[in-house]
Amino acid sequence: MPRKRSLQPRLAAKPSMENKSIGVGLMGIGVIGGQVATVLTERANMLSENACCPVVLRKIKVIESDLDRPQARAMPASLLTTDEDEFFNTPGLDIIVEVIGGEHPAFEYQKRALKAGKHVVTANKEVIAKHGAELLELAAQNGVSIRYEASVGGGIPLVAPFQRDLIANKINGIYAIINGTTNFILSTMAREGTEFATALSQAQKLGYAEANPRNDLEGIDASYKIAILATLAFRSRVRPEQVFHEGISRLSRRDFQYARELGFAIKLLAIAKQTGSEIEVRVHPVFLPADSFLAKVDGVYNAVLVDGDLTGQVTFTGKGAGALPTSSAVAADVVECARFLASGRTSPVWQAGEIKTIKPMSQVVTRYYIRMGIADQPGVLAQIAYALGANNIGIASVIQKETASDQTAEIVIMTYPAREEAMQAAFADFKKLPVVKEVHNFVRVEV
Amino acid sequence: MPRKRSLQPRLAAKPSMENKSIGVGLMGIGVIGGQVATVLTERANMLSENACCPVVLRKIKVIESDLDRPQARAMPASLLTTDEDEFFNTPGLDIIVEVIGGEHPAFEYQKRALKAGKHVVTANKEVIAKHGAELLELAAQNGVSIRYEASVGGGIPLVAPFQRDLIANKINGIYAIINGTTNFILSTMAREGTEFATALSQAQKLGYAEANPRNDLEGIDASYKIAILATLAFRSRVRPEQVFHEGISRLSRRDFQYARELGFAIKLLAIAKQTGSEIEVRVHPVFLPADSFLAKVDGVYNAVLVDGDLTGQVTFTGKGAGALPTSSAVAADVVECARFLASGRTSPVWQAGEIKTIKPMSQVVTRYYIRMGIADQPGVLAQIAYALGANNIGIASVIQKETASDQTAEIVIMTYPAREEAMQAAFADFKKLPVVKEVHNFVRVEV
Repeated sequence: MPRKRSLQPRLAAKPSMENKSIGVGLMGIGVIGGQVATVLTERANMLSENACCPVVLRKIKVIESDLDRPQARAMPASLLTTDEDEFFNTPGLDIIVEVIGGEHPAFEYQKRALKAGKHVVTANKEVIAKHGAELLELAAQNGVSIRYEASVGGGIPLVAPFQRDLIANKINGIYAIINGTTNFILSTMAREGTEFATALSQAQKLGYAEANPRNDLEGIDASYKIAILATLAFRSRVRPEQVFHEGISRLSRRDFQYARELGFAIKLLAIAKQTGSEIEVRVHPVFLPADSFLAKVDGVYNAVLVDGDLTGQVTFTGKGAGALPTSSAVAADVVECARFLASGRTSPVWQAGEIKTIKPMSQVVTRYYIRMGIADQPGVLAQIAYALGANNIGIASVIQKETASDQTAEIVIMTYPAREEAMQAAFADFKKLPVVKEVHNFVRVEV
Repeated sequence: MPRKRSLQPRLAAKPSMENKSIGVGLMGIGVIGGQVATVLTERANMLSENACCPVVLRKIKVIESDLDRPQARAMPASLLTTDEDEFFNTPGLDIIVEVIGGEHPAFEYQKRALKAGKHVVTANKEVIAKHGAELLELAAQNGVSIRYEASVGGGIPLVAPFQRDLIANKINGIYAIINGTTNFILSTMAREGTEFATALSQAQKLGYAEANPRNDLEGIDASYKIAILATLAFRSRVRPEQVFHEGISRLSRRDFQYARELGFAIKLLAIAKQTGSEIEVRVHPVFLPADSFLAKVDGVYNAVLVDGDLTGQVTFTGKGAGALPTSSAVAADVVECARFLASGRTSPVWQAGEIKTIKPMSQVVTRYYIRMGIADQPGVLAQIAYALGANNIGIASVIQKETASDQTAEIVIMTYPAREEAMQAAFADFKKLPVVKEVHNFVRVEV
């Protein structure tokens, strides 16, 4: 063996292939786009070495108002254009990186790129969740690929493991903390005993929550991401509108107090399970045993637990957002596309298969935590137990705290596993019971 | 979009390519080999669909004594051969899967396969750690690839993330629990307060430790694995003999008691760091802060924390051994090879680069936990502090427990960061101090 040699991959392509440079066009120069531009230019040598051919950033599509941003001004002016046609007609663009975000015009841009025979790399969870199947089909028709590792979990490898490393497994389930904003808020509420509004404004001050945080708080962002992962894991399209989602704004400090008392943590979990020929996909707050792996993932960290029938439980954690981690995933996808281009491989397409049924939320079975205000009088618990029992729901445990001054007591019930529709029917029955003043909250329990 | 279609990858190759089947030859039908054979046959359809071409197990090389094992008898007799030449001369073998384990004859078999222009998939950490560079070079010369995802961390994706997903990062460090046997023993000692020998025999009874567990206990197994990961992460060859390794057998229940008292857990950690142009690679027991991620990884689970400059800390956990997880990684590599073969791509090779220097262990800087027996008399601590100070080692904290009946006291010292050679010099100085009866143990501290 020769000494003083290290191991760098390159493709043993013909010399002419080796010298062909791969051109990248970048769409968007926001916080993410600026960082992607930095990585593509400052690490060009390293990326080229790994791609087995020179990788060159050739053009950046920006909007007028971005031209004055520092990250745009840091780029040579000749690279920037506000004109869509000029961008797409730039000679030698092989790969289009879309990091504009949002559904439109990102979706149209991606389609235009694919139709023009260009590979697409995107960090856009919304476009991939909503239009991934169409884009993959379009890519196949045009002999190119579309890669979206950055669309879920920032720099954590998640898309590629499902496409390759876990391919021999039947995936039983995915259990994921994949929204940093909500995990930060829930961690703050748990640690500091604050109410939701306080924790939210703290997250906003620290830049972990947007001014309009609805997509994060309501579980919409997480529903895009779990739709993408479930589609990969179960090899059956899961549309984001098929994902049941419920947000975290209903949670109060009292729920966290009871959770701790009962040995649980509260997390916003994205769950995708395969049972028989049915798929279950949902995003909502859950009670998780305090000593479980996911219960201990705090702050803006993301964690994805994958249960494969061969691997058993495999987990992936890391920062799920931010410019640096996202640029890592985007650059890896660019290198993968470039390797592909340099090697002259034929292109991957997606073929038709069977679509699995999504189980309606009404049929989902979990245990429940229920916190309610009741009249402080004898026989109340019997009435509640009767209403639950009439709906086939068993009580696992009860906590009743001392009476408040207004003659209303608070009661917390942990149920045995129950079907969602039965639980909802019980809530409807509670409304007819004068002794039940209010169902303050309920949270599903995952064990 | 057509409905009732799901997303299955296939390569848009020419029809003739699509129909070409890929033949697999399996070497070894032990516990791992039997499971690999099961996956390759029972999941042939699923794997073929993902490989974009039929993947067929064509021959299995066994040794005489394996012919009677249930996993061998479960295979059609026509697939089995004890003859090496017959095996390699089987028509239509494109991929050789080596799961024999051990250095010889596995290394020779892999070389023979590569020279014959066959792709190699292996789970063999020892061969890859010791001879990976040579094998990669040989693969390149023959236009084929060698894949070894299963050599580290069982079913946890670890090799592929370094080869692809984290490629744009400068890897600052890897911190890994990558030996299930030792982690099980340490977890047992921590949880049950047992001594090493008791925990070991418990592990042996449960099948988590081999009858001759030396490779695991002495950190040799972990040193192979971290050599493989460090080579990938730093793109510079790290030979297993360059990895400092120290085992766990010196640890006693008293060390665990002090660790808990001081807020630490004890783990056998494999560490690879890049500082400047130097690489630091070592395997030894460490004190880890009890609330750190790796401190909470218990039992036979493996966990690898990768610190990338873009991603930040990304962690991967799962079962690091066992037939099922290993078969998952092997099958994924087989599919990757088959995709490659089906697409008619050019093959990846490894090109020369710069070899980085491995920092000698004597120059490594850590904090230290030291437990020693001392004479129970005035002025002892001053003498010890003087000996440490003379070697430029500062004391961060001291615990001195009550005197034992033999007039010997036990003292525990936590130092500030010190160079290994200074610490070893201090230990030599202690030997000259009559008041130091014995240095019972020392453990490096990672924070």
